[in-house]
Amino acid sequence: MDYLSELTTKGKEAKQAGRKLATVSTAIKNQALVSMADALEQEYRSILTANAIDVENARVKGLSESMIDRLALTENRIQAMAVGLRQVAELPDPIGEVMSSVRRPNGLEISKIRVPFGVIGIIYESRPNVTVDATGLCLKAGNAVLLRGGSEAIHSNIAIIKVIARAAYKAGIPVGALELIESTDRQAVNAMLKLKQYLDVIIPRGGAGLIKTVVENSTVPVIETGTGICHTYVDECADMAMAQAICFNAKVSRPGTCNSMETLLVHQGVADQFLPAMLTKYHEAGVELRGCPKVMKYHEAVTLATNDDWATEYSDFILSIKVVANLDEALEHIHQYSTRHSEAIITKNDNHVARFQQEVDAAAVYVNASTRFTDGFEFGFGAEIGISTQKLHARGPMGLVELTSIKYLIAGNGQIRT
Amino acid sequence: MDYLSELTTKGKEAKQAGRKLATVSTAIKNQALVSMADALEQEYRSILTANAIDVENARVKGLSESMIDRLALTENRIQAMAVGLRQVAELPDPIGEVMSSVRRPNGLEISKIRVPFGVIGIIYESRPNVTVDATGLCLKAGNAVLLRGGSEAIHSNIAIIKVIARAAYKAGIPVGALELIESTDRQAVNAMLKLKQYLDVIIPRGGAGLIKTVVENSTVPVIETGTGICHTYVDECADMAMAQAICFNAKVSRPGTCNSMETLLVHQGVADQFLPAMLTKYHEAGVELRGCPKVMKYHEAVTLATNDDWATEYSDFILSIKVVANLDEALEHIHQYSTRHSEAIITKNDNHVARFQQEVDAAAVYVNASTRFTDGFEFGFGAEIGISTQKLHARGPMGLVELTSIKYLIAGNGQIRT
Repeated sequence: MDYLSELTTKGKEAKQAGRKLATVSTAIKNQALVSMADALEQEYRSILTANAIDVENARVKGLSESMIDRLALTENRIQAMAVGLRQVAELPDPIGEVMSSVRRPNGLEISKIRVPFGVIGIIYESRPNVTVDATGLCLKAGNAVLLRGGSEAIHSNIAIIKVIARAAYKAGIPVGALELIESTDRQAVNAMLKLKQYLDVIIPRGGAGLIKTVVENSTVPVIETGTGICHTYVDECADMAMAQAICFNAKVSRPGTCNSMETLLVHQGVADQFLPAMLTKYHEAGVELRGCPKVMKYHEAVTLATNDDWATEYSDFILSIKVVANLDEALEHIHQYSTRHSEAIITKNDNHVARFQQEVDAAAVYVNASTRFTDGFEFGFGAEIGISTQKLHARGPMGLVELTSIKYLIAGNGQIRT
Repeated sequence: MDYLSELTTKGKEAKQAGRKLATVSTAIKNQALVSMADALEQEYRSILTANAIDVENARVKGLSESMIDRLALTENRIQAMAVGLRQVAELPDPIGEVMSSVRRPNGLEISKIRVPFGVIGIIYESRPNVTVDATGLCLKAGNAVLLRGGSEAIHSNIAIIKVIARAAYKAGIPVGALELIESTDRQAVNAMLKLKQYLDVIIPRGGAGLIKTVVENSTVPVIETGTGICHTYVDECADMAMAQAICFNAKVSRPGTCNSMETLLVHQGVADQFLPAMLTKYHEAGVELRGCPKVMKYHEAVTLATNDDWATEYSDFILSIKVVANLDEALEHIHQYSTRHSEAIITKNDNHVARFQQEVDAAAVYVNASTRFTDGFEFGFGAEIGISTQKLHARGPMGLVELTSIKYLIAGNGQIRT
């Protein structure tokens, strides 16, 4: 089947299944999630076999070890997917919630209720666990999915969807609700972005290049996720020990995640006091340091940062550092380079707190804490499908509620408009 | 100034003004709205003079009388814009609302607060009142606007923005928050759709062609508005008198609006009873009738409906009518042709009510009432900027709350992620 036929066929099936899924009970959805988890644990060998082909192909193609690590599955990693599905089964079902209900003077009863989107398209890269994680969340929120994973993980994804779809359908989920595009033709992504007839929303999960392609080409509404050029600003009025602990954590604890700090901004009044020990600590932890000229004088390992550095999400053990004259310069730098994900200030000054909170335009604005907390579990939402960096519909960690829409039900007894 | 320079300059100014506007008090915003209303009333002559040029140009170009009516201003119409602004001033300010606040086990305090989008782009057609109505709503919700109206209303729009921007700035609104693109180059719309750097969202207001252009070409997130192919289904179990009153109202009361009925579906079991009198009533009111072969036998004025008819928003005294075998066929027809705006069932059967409410995928699903009620004032929201027919972010009438985004404020005392 060519990719266009596959997209059309599976899009249509997903749309039809999505209509039915909107009315499936919470009990059946939860049972399906648990069955999917059980199936993953029972049939993990078929998935590992398929994954071995992908890993072998990746090695032949000469992909980097970090790419191969993202791709590779183990029994433990499959077990983790199953645990994730069982957690989603435990979360409250957002569908059917009556968000408001009013009786108008003319007697019309107007209720606003939470409904699924219908079909969610997910376009992602190499991690095969997205196939399970995204499907579980979408399904719980009553949505069908049309998945398009990276070509390097295609055998793994086909094996996974086979296992979880069979389990889901057996538990009562409408057939067609879990669809994976098997074509690895690169054109399939662009065609999927035009599938407005069948897709209600597309969520891209991956690097900046993928997100950009999706945003620039999709006629289906998109929720942008993930790109994080996050800053931490150490104010003149910061507690130095706290600043050091937070700044180290924000960069080093898991630099590959989108909520890690990429740029450290330091008030000039505390640079002498703060930077020497901090830079040594980073250097000893293997962090490559790129700074403005003022930063360079504090440590010999610091190389000169270019304008590109301020605009780069390293996702790695690299940090750019700038000394700023004051809070205004920090705010201006953040305004210019932030991807509106997570930004932090370390300070004891209440006025500076207020200005930072009010003037920084980002999903998550931190005071005296590490940006690493921008995460569904850390916010108490449970599993998330990504961190939205746009302002429309959802912003920050996107849990089940963000995977829903609303509709108004209006009940009358013959009202007409005069 | 060429259109690209104008877009870039005004986009940048709006972005800068939007940052300041986000922190402007409710009192100043309300004062600005009232001042804008006063200025419209005091300076209406300059607007009428400019409008006369547009109307004259429209006549020379041979635009239809209905187009010219949409374009033409009178003292009363300007007065109505002023009244609208004062109503918006009376509405509660959504900005700053703390939507939720939690303390996490690690001591982090996470608050979700309502914030403006920043800059809203409005692309609209001939009605000059949109210049005032849209600006008033966006401003109250703390947003700057970049407006692009129809070229046929350009003199009117320039005159209006001059009056209201001067009043707004004098009242304390940051200069640059009210921007109108004066270039009438058609390319300006496409360029505006790519202005992601300065625009946070674009709301098109106009016909299906405009909406399609915006959705297909914008890299800025879009909220689709307005297209309404609305159905009313007269069930076998309908009260016949009620059905007749509602169906007449839904078509005839104001056929140019998007919430008017375009297609009437009638259960075959009541067609004999319902259609003859109903068709006569429509015919006498000057409604052109296009029906399926079964409908044609009830009235000689009915011509044969084509498939195009089911897919057309007439916005006029034209109605398509179909006899259906049962609720399933009605639901299927609605699923196929609905633009997901407003759909109604007339029935006394509770099971049919439940199925219709659950299975119809639309912003507003009515039982025993006219679809004409889909409107911000009728829903009790006050003025609206349009009816969203998409599922992302906003659905149905969009009031002030729908013109906002959120951000998370996280306050800690040194928390790091382990």
